[in-house]
Amino acid sequence: MSAAEKNGTGVTAAAGFAAAGVVAGLKASGSADLAVVHNLGPLRSAAAVFTRNRVQAAPVVWSRGVVADGSVAAVVLNSGGANACTGPAGLQDATTMAARTADALDVEAGDVVVCSTGLIGTRLPMDRVVAGIEACSAALDPSGGAGAARAIMTTDSRPKESATTVTGPTGTWTVGGMAKGAGMLAPALATMLVVLTTDAVATPETLDRALRAATARTFDRADADGCMSTNDTVVLLASGASGVEVDARTLTEALTEVCADLAHQLVDDAEGAAHTIAITVAGAASEDDALEVGRAVARSNLFKCAVFGRDPNWGRVLAAVGTTSAAFEPDDLDVTFNGVMVCRGGQIGDDRSLVDLSGREVSLLIGLGAGEAEATIWTTDLTHDYVTENAEYST
Amino acid sequence: MSAAEKNGTGVTAAAGFAAAGVVAGLKASGSADLAVVHNLGPLRSAAAVFTRNRVQAAPVVWSRGVVADGSVAAVVLNSGGANACTGPAGLQDATTMAARTADALDVEAGDVVVCSTGLIGTRLPMDRVVAGIEACSAALDPSGGAGAARAIMTTDSRPKESATTVTGPTGTWTVGGMAKGAGMLAPALATMLVVLTTDAVATPETLDRALRAATARTFDRADADGCMSTNDTVVLLASGASGVEVDARTLTEALTEVCADLAHQLVDDAEGAAHTIAITVAGAASEDDALEVGRAVARSNLFKCAVFGRDPNWGRVLAAVGTTSAAFEPDDLDVTFNGVMVCRGGQIGDDRSLVDLSGREVSLLIGLGAGEAEATIWTTDLTHDYVTENAEYST
Repeated sequence: MSAAEKNGTGVTAAAGFAAAGVVAGLKASGSADLAVVHNLGPLRSAAAVFTRNRVQAAPVVWSRGVVADGSVAAVVLNSGGANACTGPAGLQDATTMAARTADALDVEAGDVVVCSTGLIGTRLPMDRVVAGIEACSAALDPSGGAGAARAIMTTDSRPKESATTVTGPTGTWTVGGMAKGAGMLAPALATMLVVLTTDAVATPETLDRALRAATARTFDRADADGCMSTNDTVVLLASGASGVEVDARTLTEALTEVCADLAHQLVDDAEGAAHTIAITVAGAASEDDALEVGRAVARSNLFKCAVFGRDPNWGRVLAAVGTTSAAFEPDDLDVTFNGVMVCRGGQIGDDRSLVDLSGREVSLLIGLGAGEAEATIWTTDLTHDYVTENAEYST
Repeated sequence: MSAAEKNGTGVTAAAGFAAAGVVAGLKASGSADLAVVHNLGPLRSAAAVFTRNRVQAAPVVWSRGVVADGSVAAVVLNSGGANACTGPAGLQDATTMAARTADALDVEAGDVVVCSTGLIGTRLPMDRVVAGIEACSAALDPSGGAGAARAIMTTDSRPKESATTVTGPTGTWTVGGMAKGAGMLAPALATMLVVLTTDAVATPETLDRALRAATARTFDRADADGCMSTNDTVVLLASGASGVEVDARTLTEALTEVCADLAHQLVDDAEGAAHTIAITVAGAASEDDALEVGRAVARSNLFKCAVFGRDPNWGRVLAAVGTTSAAFEPDDLDVTFNGVMVCRGGQIGDDRSLVDLSGREVSLLIGLGAGEAEATIWTTDLTHDYVTENAEYST
């Protein structure tokens, strides 16, 4: 029986973790809105990456300090309110969430990461949050991952979980995780909260290296709407329960697999999207050039509307490429939609009517003709549903 | 009788110009789609600014060369096709447009600026273009500005014209102009074609200085959808017909007035917009900081959807401000929607329900608390109509 079968899914796929999600009453809908993930040990190694937005929510300010020493015993998360732009009172609320979770689990408040998501600029109803923390801590279970994943959803239409089990020369170990996304997905982390867990034995330094490498190639390349959140947090906890020691390279591989799966789930479920678009930039002089071009195209509203309209509008692709500082000559640019090269050498290529954009998945390949580097950015189209969801979100 | 009364409107408001617009058959709609503006002299001084997009349409490549010597006799413009990404054949088409216009007006081809707008990546039907140039050249009239302004429209819902007459110590002179916009309005020029004319006496160097100063504070600060076109052109012609010499400072003032009016008309008529938003960033350490912050907010799709939904969502404003490198402390940020300071010192301010966003005009004031510099960016909201227009444009 593998760890994944013995335990739960997502954050409880790896051994040494318990989790739960409860209804604290923070959401008007009455859905689950508070989750706790508890690292049962024996190790409590951890690492995290946070939003690069300079306006940072109180939980992010608090959690940066928690993770600094590489030790985390638990993560408490709520949906229904971001606790961002709430001033000193908001920071006090985040601190209280950590302290109450620590009390319930008999750990140190300074070892509890706090994550919040929802509307910016409103205080959390702390009486409900505190009661929720107590109920959730009492409900913790080694198979509770699925419940926790549901409780962190905002405008997500479905929970996101993933896990992979690795059998190496020294034994079997697992990486698992959960994520929430939906809006503000970009550009270096989305409005995403992600908790990753592993039962491997690893130092905080190894976790940090592996986490940064894995997120740089996965979450950092998902750009649904170009808007960067104030609350993004990706935290990785290691329990060591498998007894299997791993090095950074091996851990990075497994982590990247789980993060890529979660990142795809985030883009597939981005607010109002009708198409999931993989923009691959090839023939670039450097990976940075490829990323710059991919991001520029991913942020072109005109391109994104064209895909919604099932229109392989390569002119809008070239117009976006032309705004970058990447190395290329306009006459060397190729653009291929779903296998049809509609622009060749900067000019009209194959018949655009051959392109079928009726499916959910769209593959856009841009050839710069300037080198050998390549990178892929995932994005979505711009739709009526996106406008509707984001025009009506807080009102 | 003033010059503006004696002559036409827009590009024919100043003395010494004739213009016309005709139906060449380039648009499926059968509307006017080809225009010529002829400088009757005695001067033929000129200056121009072009798109900074590295993918440049054939007419832009041609016209850069024409303007280099500071002498322009005429401008020929067509809607119904951008002649962009059309390779050497497209450049030949642009050259032919200049040559045929030159023949009809008995001037040099190397003194004819060419502007095209419409779909990227399709060749122009040159037989119709050539016939249109002949018909248009025969119809030129000192009161033909309004017809020319109609002929350059694409998805514009109305023509854009402006003019101002200045009476100074040495006499009376006029600056006029026409513009087309609608989509791809950003960030340093929009998909805009603008022809400005003056009957003042000025050297090409004076025109160039004044034009760059005026566009930097007007067209460069209109950012409807963050998409930069391959065809943007703003050209200024001086006939000298008033006999009044002007210096760069005086000319800049009058030009800025006309350009600001035209830029406002462009934003007011941007594709699918329901709100015109003036984003003023004050208390900045530098004007560059103010512009960076204003542009970041103007490009936030979440912010733009919120305005469409009449929601003074200051959290999305702060999230966008936080992505910039401008000097500020998060705790010093103020956000005021239509006079109501909904965020004060980075925290919840006055009651958001006091904000009325039901009107067309929205004023957003962002205080950085970091200095004395200030700048305003004009943008629009993100609406269902924007998505519809841009999903269906080429199909």
